[in-house]
Amino acid sequence: MPEHTTASRLKLSGLCFLLQILTIILFAVFARYSPERSPSLCSQKVNCSWRNQESGFQHPRFRDVHLKALLGLGLLVTFLGRYGLGSAAVSILSVAFAIQWALLIQGFFYFFLNGKIYVGAQSMVSADFCTAAVLVSTGAVLGRVNPLQMLLLTLLGVILFTLNEYLLLSLMGVNDSGGSLTVHTFGAYFGLMVSRLLHQPHGDKRKEQQDTGHQPDVFAVIGTIYLWIFWPSFTSATAVRDNTEPWALLNTYFSLAASTLATFVLSPILNEEGTLRMVQIQDATLAGAAVMGMAGEMLVTPFGALIAGFLAGLIPPLGFRFLTPILRSSLKTPDTCGVHNVHGLPGVLGALLGTLLAALATADAYGGRLELVFPLVAQGSRTATNQALCQLGALPVTLLLATLGGCVTG
Amino acid sequence: MPEHTTASRLKLSGLCFLLQILTIILFAVFARYSPERSPSLCSQKVNCSWRNQESGFQHPRFRDVHLKALLGLGLLVTFLGRYGLGSAAVSILSVAFAIQWALLIQGFFYFFLNGKIYVGAQSMVSADFCTAAVLVSTGAVLGRVNPLQMLLLTLLGVILFTLNEYLLLSLMGVNDSGGSLTVHTFGAYFGLMVSRLLHQPHGDKRKEQQDTGHQPDVFAVIGTIYLWIFWPSFTSATAVRDNTEPWALLNTYFSLAASTLATFVLSPILNEEGTLRMVQIQDATLAGAAVMGMAGEMLVTPFGALIAGFLAGLIPPLGFRFLTPILRSSLKTPDTCGVHNVHGLPGVLGALLGTLLAALATADAYGGRLELVFPLVAQGSRTATNQALCQLGALPVTLLLATLGGCVTG
Amino acid sequence: MPEHTTASRLKLSGLCFLLQILTIILFAVFARYSPERSPSLCSQKVNCSWRNQESGFQHPRFRDVHLKALLGLGLLVTFLGRYGLGSAAVSILSVAFAIQWALLIQGFFYFFLNGKIYVGAQSMVSADFCTAAVLVSTGAVLGRVNPLQMLLLTLLGVILFTLNEYLLLSLMGVNDSGGSLTVHTFGAYFGLMVSRLLHQPHGDKRKEQQDTGHQPDVFAVIGTIYLWIFWPSFTSATAVRDNTEPWALLNTYFSLAASTLATFVLSPILNEEGTLRMVQIQDATLAGAAVMGMAGEMLVTPFGALIAGFLAGLIPPLGFRFLTPILRSSLKTPDTCGVHNVHGLPGVLGALLGTLLAALATADAYGGRLELVFPLVAQGSRTATNQALCQLGALPVTLLLATLGGCVTG
Repeated sequence: MPEHTTASRLKLSGLCFLLQILTIILFAVFARYSPERSPSLCSQKVNCSWRNQESGFQHPRFRDVHLKALLGLGLLVTFLGRYGLGSAAVSILSVAFAIQWALLIQGFFYFFLNGKIYVGAQSMVSADFCTAAVLVSTGAVLGRVNPLQMLLLTLLGVILFTLNEYLLLSLMGVNDSGGSLTVHTFGAYFGLMVSRLLHQPHGDKRKEQQDTGHQPDVFAVIGTIYLWIFWPSFTSATAVRDNTEPWALLNTYFSLAASTLATFVLSPILNEEGTLRMVQIQDATLAGAAVMGMAGEMLVTPFGALIAGFLAGLIPPLGFRFLTPILRSSLKTPDTCGVHNVHGLPGVLGALLGTLLAALATADAYGGRLELVFPLVAQGSRTATNQALCQLGALPVTLLLATLGGCVTG
Repeated sequence: MPEHTTASRLKLSGLCFLLQILTIILFAVFARYSPERSPSLCSQKVNCSWRNQESGFQHPRFRDVHLKALLGLGLLVTFLGRYGLGSAAVSILSVAFAIQWALLIQGFFYFFLNGKIYVGAQSMVSADFCTAAVLVSTGAVLGRVNPLQMLLLTLLGVILFTLNEYLLLSLMGVNDSGGSLTVHTFGAYFGLMVSRLLHQPHGDKRKEQQDTGHQPDVFAVIGTIYLWIFWPSFTSATAVRDNTEPWALLNTYFSLAASTLATFVLSPILNEEGTLRMVQIQDATLAGAAVMGMAGEMLVTPFGALIAGFLAGLIPPLGFRFLTPILRSSLKTPDTCGVHNVHGLPGVLGALLGTLLAALATADAYGGRLELVFPLVAQGSRTATNQALCQLGALPVTLLLATLGGCVTG
Repeated sequence: MPEHTTASRLKLSGLCFLLQILTIILFAVFARYSPERSPSLCSQKVNCSWRNQESGFQHPRFRDVHLKALLGLGLLVTFLGRYGLGSAAVSILSVAFAIQWALLIQGFFYFFLNGKIYVGAQSMVSADFCTAAVLVSTGAVLGRVNPLQMLLLTLLGVILFTLNEYLLLSLMGVNDSGGSLTVHTFGAYFGLMVSRLLHQPHGDKRKEQQDTGHQPDVFAVIGTIYLWIFWPSFTSATAVRDNTEPWALLNTYFSLAASTLATFVLSPILNEEGTLRMVQIQDATLAGAAVMGMAGEMLVTPFGALIAGFLAGLIPPLGFRFLTPILRSSLKTPDTCGVHNVHGLPGVLGALLGTLLAALATADAYGGRLELVFPLVAQGSRTATNQALCQLGALPVTLLLATLGGCVTG
């Protein structure tokens, strides 16, 4: 981390104060708690995506919301495994601000009514997804930006994430409950683009150092266990639709298990040292989770999840071996925590898988679930092929927005 | 920790044995499981405070109870961040005994019926709140008492806590669902008083050492994440009243986020070193949680929680800079883990905030929630102003009892 | 861990690949998600044990299932406390494979219908119990087998565990909801037997080293807290029968608290060093949990749980002092993580306790719970004494199967 001179410390202090005051004022003006047992504010909009369907299942949501801070914090633990304790303070600052900011920004998009934003358990969960995406971006530039830049990145990242999510979920009717595209892909490419633009030749030495100091294996172990415990709940967090939940949850477990095995298959071959480092297993776990983001609730057979997880688990070892060096040297895009291998590519794979599954979706295979997973298809206003095209179209939209956003932010 | 001579080790062993046998006998004589789907034992008493209202929501309680050991253990993790591993064994001993003892003592106060104490999920949750308060006290004397003294402190602390809680909740009808007063304020001042009386001049050197050994940052990171994940659930644990819960939960999240930012505002100014230590963020998180204890379910607007959290987050950095040295030198009250800054003052602030909110409570703002949050006001047997006076009166009662109790225990 | 030559690394990679492909094919052929709100497949069999009764409580199950990976991972954390980080990678490999494999094998025994295995939340929970048993076995041989052997041990262990569980639960109608016998006793003796047969005289030096390197106290602390937080939920995981749950849960808490105190009673006497190591507290916690496995939902009074926990807490210190040296030198059965003291003996104690309680079970004491805890007794097809004999008979069956299985695997 850059040295903190007195001036930069005071600037950070001032910026924090300013942002917090700004947030408080905005909350004071706009934010209100949603009336009790919110009578589905959403339903007054035309195309309200998944948020709408949940209104009937308030109770599980209230229970789940206490898991919300987990998603972002899980990623945080994960980065500690790669980068070490030095980043913890800045990351937590980023999380603390992103949650407040995301509530406001997402409120303007989704929950705005009569000049007020109605805050509730649902908006908390959305805000956390947003925070997670920002943390993924953060992973690409960790150690090369100062806290001030981090706050600005969070500020813009949240706005762009919400814009992207709004485009995908509300306007295009894409189903991406676990955030393969919105969280993982968007976060990774946004972060990479910022990283590309912040790249300075003399910064390279610092990364070398990050590659050698492998002490925080403790965090890699804790991070891996944490992901196994809580991630399946995240993936299914926005899919709490009575029957659908267990599928998303089970699929994610299968995917995790298979991707872990995949790492054991590949890394002895690629790795001369022979001993498997915990960080690699953690990467595989993350990749296995990222790939299930979109497809989690679409897969109708357990072996599909196993195959997807296995493929996803192959990406990080290959990526770290072949892709990251190319990215760093030829494309001048350093990637501190390897978010491209761990979030970016598995996210894209997950989106392609989701497209394939959407194309194959038939009322037969899904039964009563069809209208939960693909409401527009079930209502007949869209064919399965159209839905698949939408899912596919969401990928370039996300990539474009992430890239452009990254340029602007950088 | 003082050296364990053989004699003191045998004494500890004997005391543990004695206490355990005593507890087993008392349990054998008095404790029974409450009959299935307990037909509200509480309702047979006149003024049964919050415990009563929950009887209709058995199901979420059963689910929540598995979180109960968390509250105490979360604090434990927290102290590890400040004081290191040496204290872990003694603290766990304290927790293990306090839970059994609290069940008995609280049983005599609340669940005593026909000569039997009825044990159930609710009594477990209360016992855990009690354990948490004892652990807060423990934080003030950690490292300066031996395990024997710790057990005696636990023994008396549990009795006094229950007495205080009974006075506040049942007799005075105070609403303090998250324990701003009963857990944080009581625990902190009780511990400080004991610390004052145990103070010996030559003990000061040991504290110096505690201030320098900063290695367990790992625990500060884990502790902070742990608090973010689980604390909001604690604050709302006793507030599981269907509609109310999400407010307490969301308020706590907002408070946590704002207090974290507050630390980043203040500590670069106060701290010459420049780098922010994780322990400070952890303190801010704790303070942000403590301040929401009472006000958590009373606040009707999110920005109120942000302001309260922000103010609470300012306390620990200021306290550690200015107050702790004064406490230590002038008042001869060493405070190992800074419980005064982290629990005491934010708890008092939370109580004052609760008073203010109770005074402002109107049926308009609360709607149907009024009878859940302030049942006596809703029933008309008390005006909002009277409720506010009660809430305010609870503060000196708690302080008095904590101080007197601390003297006796010391 | 043995040195990894290039050949052995490639063999490991190949085996992982093979096993994963095999699992994927088997899943593709047999596994399907159970139809929505599964219409109790179980009920079509005659004697479907506890699995059947849960079908009416789908909802809590869906919620609990997200805890399922915890059981195995908790044990994993635990072993880290004893053995250190070196084992983490191999253990996670073992977990990842065991979950997939257990789903298949258990599917063939329990959920096989029309040539398909129906996978759902229930089968996930069973698979995790199986994984936990395999991890217990693993604890006995950790550090003396290579990853290849570990995978084979997992492969066979899963099959034998399922066979044993099927015999006990389905054929003999034994009630063992928390796995005192099926998880702890079976796992421990299976692992010990394998350890006995793998024993080579020159391997002893390595264990010496394990006894001295005490650095990972961090993991012991985290492991202990983890067990306190989550274990009570495991013990009651398969006992989610509306009313019964809180008993199993509360009993486990009491047992944990009492066993922790027991450690403090005994270890100052047995231990010359005086200071109590966290690992010992962790052992006591595990033993306290193991003893409650069977009796958890049978105990009708809290003090019973206290006594059982206290007795169980006495086992590990005594065992490590007197039994482990004998096992190692006379019986040539090294026991890396002391699974005999921590899982084996407390499991046997738990089974004996369960027998006693089953013999004493009367309709009076249990009330409406009788048909939940002992359905066969309540239906009149079995007397309480017969049920007790069955429970008792399950002990030698488990021991026999574990020993024979261990021989074959070894």
